Amino acid sequence: MEQNNLAGIRQYIGQNRERFYEELFSLLRIPSVSAQKEHHPDMLACAERMAELLREAGCDEAGVYPTDGNPVVFGQKILDPSLKTVLVYGHYDVQPAEPLEKWNSDPFEPVIHDGAIWGRGANDDKGQSFMHIKAFEYLVRTGKLTHNVKFVFEGEEEIGSKHLAGWVAGHKEMLACDVILVSDTTMISDKVPSINCGMRGVTYLQLDVKGPDKDLHSGHYGGAVANPINTLCDMISSLIDKDGRVTIPGFYDDVVEVSDADRAELARAPFDLEEYKESIGVRELKGEKGFTTIERTAIRPCLDVCGIWGGYTGAGSKTVLPSEAHAKISMRIVPNQKADRIIALAEEHLKAIAPPYVTVNIERMDAGNGFLIPITSSAYKAASAAMTEVYGIEPVPSRGGGSICVLAEMRNILGADPLLMGFGLERDTIHSPNESYLIRQFEAGMESIALFYEYWK
Amino acid sequence: MEQNNLAGIRQYIGQNRERFYEELFSLLRIPSVSAQKEHHPDMLACAERMAELLREAGCDEAGVYPTDGNPVVFGQKILDPSLKTVLVYGHYDVQPAEPLEKWNSDPFEPVIHDGAIWGRGANDDKGQSFMHIKAFEYLVRTGKLTHNVKFVFEGEEEIGSKHLAGWVAGHKEMLACDVILVSDTTMISDKVPSINCGMRGVTYLQLDVKGPDKDLHSGHYGGAVANPINTLCDMISSLIDKDGRVTIPGFYDDVVEVSDADRAELARAPFDLEEYKESIGVRELKGEKGFTTIERTAIRPCLDVCGIWGGYTGAGSKTVLPSEAHAKISMRIVPNQKADRIIALAEEHLKAIAPPYVTVNIERMDAGNGFLIPITSSAYKAASAAMTEVYGIEPVPSRGGGSICVLAEMRNILGADPLLMGFGLERDTIHSPNESYLIRQFEAGMESIALFYEYWK
Repeated sequence: MEQNNLAGIRQYIGQNRERFYEELFSLLRIPSVSAQKEHHPDMLACAERMAELLREAGCDEAGVYPTDGNPVVFGQKILDPSLKTVLVYGHYDVQPAEPLEKWNSDPFEPVIHDGAIWGRGANDDKGQSFMHIKAFEYLVRTGKLTHNVKFVFEGEEEIGSKHLAGWVAGHKEMLACDVILVSDTTMISDKVPSINCGMRGVTYLQLDVKGPDKDLHSGHYGGAVANPINTLCDMISSLIDKDGRVTIPGFYDDVVEVSDADRAELARAPFDLEEYKESIGVRELKGEKGFTTIERTAIRPCLDVCGIWGGYTGAGSKTVLPSEAHAKISMRIVPNQKADRIIALAEEHLKAIAPPYVTVNIERMDAGNGFLIPITSSAYKAASAAMTEVYGIEPVPSRGGGSICVLAEMRNILGADPLLMGFGLERDTIHSPNESYLIRQFEAGMESIALFYEYWK
Repeated sequence: MEQNNLAGIRQYIGQNRERFYEELFSLLRIPSVSAQKEHHPDMLACAERMAELLREAGCDEAGVYPTDGNPVVFGQKILDPSLKTVLVYGHYDVQPAEPLEKWNSDPFEPVIHDGAIWGRGANDDKGQSFMHIKAFEYLVRTGKLTHNVKFVFEGEEEIGSKHLAGWVAGHKEMLACDVILVSDTTMISDKVPSINCGMRGVTYLQLDVKGPDKDLHSGHYGGAVANPINTLCDMISSLIDKDGRVTIPGFYDDVVEVSDADRAELARAPFDLEEYKESIGVRELKGEKGFTTIERTAIRPCLDVCGIWGGYTGAGSKTVLPSEAHAKISMRIVPNQKADRIIALAEEHLKAIAPPYVTVNIERMDAGNGFLIPITSSAYKAASAAMTEVYGIEPVPSRGGGSICVLAEMRNILGADPLLMGFGLERDTIHSPNESYLIRQFEAGMESIALFYEYWK
């Protein structure tokens, strides 16, 4: 019986593979970059295409719902209100493709080679969202669907999901469900399937440091006037101490110390430090003292400068003492830390440490909490059984360093736990040039999702 | 007699003012930005135009001389080999105009308003070089020329004058002179004419810090992998200590301690700290402990970051742990410090402090020495007398923080001292958007230069 079920979805994939690529590529070709205003029309086009795909796959209804930001795509098929209801969450917006010159092919003209699909969004999250549509299509067309299924695809995940929680709160009845099923994360490695049962939150701000009211000649003024770039570097450098700890007062106040037992559980996940370093091309790692590499991303908060700029950045050697310098700073936070409090503490601290020879401006950009989900639920167990059958290995429960902050909010509003079946791999370099998605993971994902429905009684 | 001489040049300016603007504007319209490769054809066009202006002004010969970089313009009028010879030095290349959006008018379409000429190069150094051509023209056309005059205008001053010293060494006989006359500096203020008798040297390098071999997701890796931007900030922050001193070992070894008498002489120059701060829009100044603001730029070396970039710098909030970060760093040095040694020390130090989790690459860009010139020479005295007559105030000998490194080399090769009659003002914001040159300084410059020839017997 089990073999038959897996054989069924495998056969369906084999019969429809080329159509699946065509449909997915139609999504990937739309440059739905939510961070860049010029792509606003692409957001609408991509939302419409998602809704169309939902209708074609078997939804009774699917449409594009406006918000104060980018629209939400919602579709559903209700078999019987007494049945369990799965709410699939994904997002159709993508990260900016820049720096364009580092791509080996056009980020918005997907190609297949080396066993993978290459293009912006191939994995994050068009590729992973698409797996759910196709697994659903398989169940509908083969008469195997035994759940009510609802889909929510938002267009602002990469810019902090500012409008989704409000929309969800306004459509609470329509979205009522028993589980929020999500594929927007990675596995530990391609040898170790895993199910993500915790995520960090994220806060993001832009720090602008202004010195003189115009760019100055670095010869005439250098040495006598504080340079805003040097000052920005001083401020940033002071934010992390020699033990790798963030120096913002109160930053760690709400961090729950993880028990030794839980740390031992985390340490069970196979992890090869040398392989990890090699996969990202670094000789040594750096992080908070007293924690392992896995712990540093799973259970500890951190601070990273995501971008910095100021002065002359062109070719050659312009001698200038610039007027301004800027940095974009993200802070990942762990469950129980409150995003709003952390970003307020950061703002307060940055203002407090700004020297009197500069003025600073801080723009708060994103703030969202992390969360933890129970591995004792029937949904988690069904997902684990499905992936065990597909991979031949029982998946490891893991905690991811990334953030899908809106899931914490949806969980609160809808009263249902998220279930994070992610099929990405580190090699996919989401958020970077040459994003890709391995075809064997794409197909294992569709298989696992189809089986999840069959196992979750 | 003196009044007559000043009256003569003033009358000549009055009669030719519109033509002077037209001719100067023909230079300013050529975007001869030496730092930007795409402007290579403009360098040649600008050099040809300079040579043409020299011929029209009265040079017996003037031409464009190729080098391995941008060509040198040379022209001369030899009255009698037994007479004193003035070699005028200037440059026809300009700084990049970026950031373009901060200009109130097109940087390469000069305009006149508010008593000034506005455009890139209006002062530095097309405007100031042009004064010499017109003062010479006046002396030639009125039969008052009593010196041999040679002109050298280079096209690489803003990028370190890489090829001029070699060219000068190869044309030593042709360039033989008694003084190297230069207008490429500023006065202390518009109320205080000054003659610059010392300049700092400059060294410039680009520091590239590389971490992971690709941009990483800041959630998946943040906290576990060293961020190259944070690392670059740490490195930069460590280069200046809490007393404002550069921490590179050996950096101050060759700095000559200036005597109390000389420091007292420097302090005689009128200087209003509040006015200075107001002119650049800062509330407080910052510099090396134990030195005044004037001293910090005149007799002390310094280090400034002229540009920094890395990661995501576009709109919105891209969460990325970037692969690379970069900075352009200039170090101004004082006479007796050797540029080659300083840049070698800096490179050695940056490599030494680079943490093991990044690789650094250092590109040496410019290196040139500073110099001091005697105020007891007959040429200095003639310049002082000329400016006293024009301004009605005796000029103050000053030491400038800027750098024209090639003058130190020309002085060694030709055995003649530079004489720095600069007519720029701080308000001109050379190297910044909205560069301008006050017409009253432009004209006072032509007057002073014409009188200099008459006073220097």
